[in-house]
Amino acid sequence: MTNPQSDDHKAILDLLDRWITFASNKDVDAVMALYSDDICSFDAIGPLQVRGHAQYRAHWHRCMPEKGTVFFQPLEPSIRVSGDLAVVHFLIRCGLRHDDGSEQASWMRATKQLEKQGGHWRIVHEHFSVPFDYENCAAQFDLAP
Amino acid sequence: MTNPQSDDHKAILDLLDRWITFASNKDVDAVMALYSDDICSFDAIGPLQVRGHAQYRAHWHRCMPEKGTVFFQPLEPSIRVSGDLAVVHFLIRCGLRHDDGSEQASWMRATKQLEKQGGHWRIVHEHFSVPFDYENCAAQFDLAP
Repeated sequence: MTNPQSDDHKAILDLLDRWITFASNKDVDAVMALYSDDICSFDAIGPLQVRGHAQYRAHWHRCMPEKGTVFFQPLEPSIRVSGDLAVVHFLIRCGLRHDDGSEQASWMRATKQLEKQGGHWRIVHEHFSVPFDYENCAAQFDLAP
Repeated sequence: MTNPQSDDHKAILDLLDRWITFASNKDVDAVMALYSDDICSFDAIGPLQVRGHAQYRAHWHRCMPEKGTVFFQPLEPSIRVSGDLAVVHFLIRCGLRHDDGSEQASWMRATKQLEKQGGHWRIVHEHFSVPFDYENCAAQFDLAP
């Protein structure tokens, strides 16, 4: 459906690259510039949803660890574009490298809905999650693709 | 962006209604007819992802309880359509009513990507989840909108 050579496809891949760079740098202002004002987020960590730029900025600040290095490694994003609407979904390895060199990481799932606003793609909805185990209701941080 | 009076908007609302009816009836064959052959699902219950019609049908059969009544109550779906691509996202109360009348239910988050194939809308990607608590890593089944 989407031509990987199209300008929109490239622009969305570029936005995803910038999202990863900015998030890895813990640069919340730069990350937030990629979101629409009316962002609706279903994040991996509660609450159920976060709506609007100001609330989501506060959520990002709450979730960013003060110490250590964060990293995000997406796996083969699937991108579909039609007119001013696009969807990207992918698995992503997210982690925290502590100052002593030890690492915590797990695979998560990400879906992003984007819309072109004034010529620029912006994220209007995103859904991040870890599945839970039906037997014990615990989040499954030990799964791998 | 999307006109609620448009035929596509109505067709997608109708698909969502049928999804709820079929799932509530535990009619996996009817539910599966709403999915594209290349469905990619990030479900609330592991594994990380389920790909393709046959695998997803097996996952639905694993997840459907043999006893009791299941129910699904979506809250104000947000729908965006552009050409042959659409995105729907919403909170949804999902539950199980046991034969003794007792009930288990929790609010979840749902995002569905749809594509029009041969004149019919089909779900090509869906993402269901419950957030987890950052403090104890447990799935948060007790949240409400």
